Amino acid sequence: VGNFTNEEGCRFHTDMLGSAVATGRLPLDEAWRLEDSDGRSIEAELKRIGFLGDADPLAMRPHAYVECHVEQGPVLGHAGVDVGVVTGVQAISWYELALTGNACHAGATPMELRRDPAAAAARVLGWVQEMATSGTYGEAMRATVGSLRALPGAINVVPARVEATVDMRNPSDADLERAERDMLAFLDELAEGSGVQIEQRRIASTPAVPFDAHVRELIAACADSLDLSHRHILSGAGHDAQEWARIVKTAMVFVPGQHDGISHNPREHSTPEQCAAGVNVLLRTLLALAEEE
Amino acid sequence: VGNFTNEEGCRFHTDMLGSAVATGRLPLDEAWRLEDSDGRSIEAELKRIGFLGDADPLAMRPHAYVECHVEQGPVLGHAGVDVGVVTGVQAISWYELALTGNACHAGATPMELRRDPAAAAARVLGWVQEMATSGTYGEAMRATVGSLRALPGAINVVPARVEATVDMRNPSDADLERAERDMLAFLDELAEGSGVQIEQRRIASTPAVPFDAHVRELIAACADSLDLSHRHILSGAGHDAQEWARIVKTAMVFVPGQHDGISHNPREHSTPEQCAAGVNVLLRTLLALAEEE
Repeated sequence: VGNFTNEEGCRFHTDMLGSAVATGRLPLDEAWRLEDSDGRSIEAELKRIGFLGDADPLAMRPHAYVECHVEQGPVLGHAGVDVGVVTGVQAISWYELALTGNACHAGATPMELRRDPAAAAARVLGWVQEMATSGTYGEAMRATVGSLRALPGAINVVPARVEATVDMRNPSDADLERAERDMLAFLDELAEGSGVQIEQRRIASTPAVPFDAHVRELIAACADSLDLSHRHILSGAGHDAQEWARIVKTAMVFVPGQHDGISHNPREHSTPEQCAAGVNVLLRTLLALAEEE
Repeated sequence: VGNFTNEEGCRFHTDMLGSAVATGRLPLDEAWRLEDSDGRSIEAELKRIGFLGDADPLAMRPHAYVECHVEQGPVLGHAGVDVGVVTGVQAISWYELALTGNACHAGATPMELRRDPAAAAARVLGWVQEMATSGTYGEAMRATVGSLRALPGAINVVPARVEATVDMRNPSDADLERAERDMLAFLDELAEGSGVQIEQRRIASTPAVPFDAHVRELIAACADSLDLSHRHILSGAGHDAQEWARIVKTAMVFVPGQHDGISHNPREHSTPEQCAAGVNVLLRTLLALAEEE
């Protein structure tokens, strides 16, 4: 049984920190040197709280890795099933966009003399939505503009600048790369056509991680043996399991969440019954794996 | 020669304050009672600085009113003309919009289970841009989304809410009203189709003010007599002249601005030559009007 520190990467900015070290992707001394926003290192903080151990983090190489987690989404709840058999973690790509035009008087400037970054941003948002819903990049393509802001932000001033982010996810690395290429080509075209300057920066990119077919079958069989309904589901979020999948056979069990699976929110909730179902499937799967060579 | 206080309405929130009182639209005692954000009244502040006079503000009823102002836009500069003969002030309508959906995990929530206010906002921005450029509401329709903000504004969270403003202007009251009606119908339809709740509030509305044809002709003739090139232009911004136009024959002379007519900005600038041209046209127009009955 393992519990890996700092999966979220909030205070020290690498998510999956503990499992990245335990699986050898991130060297221990590099991890120790990571600093929080006050300049305090992980090493100094572990020492201060008495948790700077001397065990070799790479010493334990398990036979398999199985993780139970809340879905953080609405799929299982809407399908009315007890547990999810996770097929993998989708590829993720994050972009920051800055659209720069020309601030001017909303009353005195004719439409044809404007370089309006809000009008260009509307085209970007529309394109992103179409990208995710058209099926061009597969049925599971997801895209989100989570952050969006016009500056200076006055009712009677055409904005000088609009800042936005795009979060793109796809189970297929190839489909995601194609979507990214097409978006960048669209942004170039839009900048040329609108006279609005568009800067883009990819600030995160992680490939898709497929989970082990044998472990997934075991999870499904164990759910069946407990009379629990289940379905395959792709993880939309990142998890420690994606680190372990690189080195041992790995899969995950998902538990449904209440309130449409709302997550990272005080309203996030799974019932004790839902949790018990997931953990019982996890336990049976581990017992079956423990019998293997 | 008149100089009217508080045309902008910044500290005391009625624009055209001085001319609204002098033309009888706003009673003097109502104006005196207006308070700034610290609760100090105009009456008390005028008294404090020694400017609370006892003359009747309605005593002076001029034969005509002519005002020279910087254009605050790029039209005259782009046309390369010396002065603008202002045909009137366009009608203005301001709206605040709030689009409320359902915040959720950008990775874990399939597109078809979202109620995404940013996707709905993209449709609104696109509709507003189309409204202003399609010609459906006349060639001079202008519309601007100056303020735009997604909340909570995190890259990997589908927004809960998007707030935006719409500034709409048109020389025709009827065309502007038609545009407003169509926008509200579009918002209703969009809310119904997207599952996103859309609240709208009209926060300002002023009708169009056409200027006097005779005074406009005089201005054009005076510009000709000074060998100054000119063209007709509609004012995008509000001016004291719109108050006087209710009670006496009124028009305006516009002077071009440098830097694409940037305004309400430290870079706003008209050259001494540009200002002299405008003021000379104003003077000749006034001298001609002074000869009238």
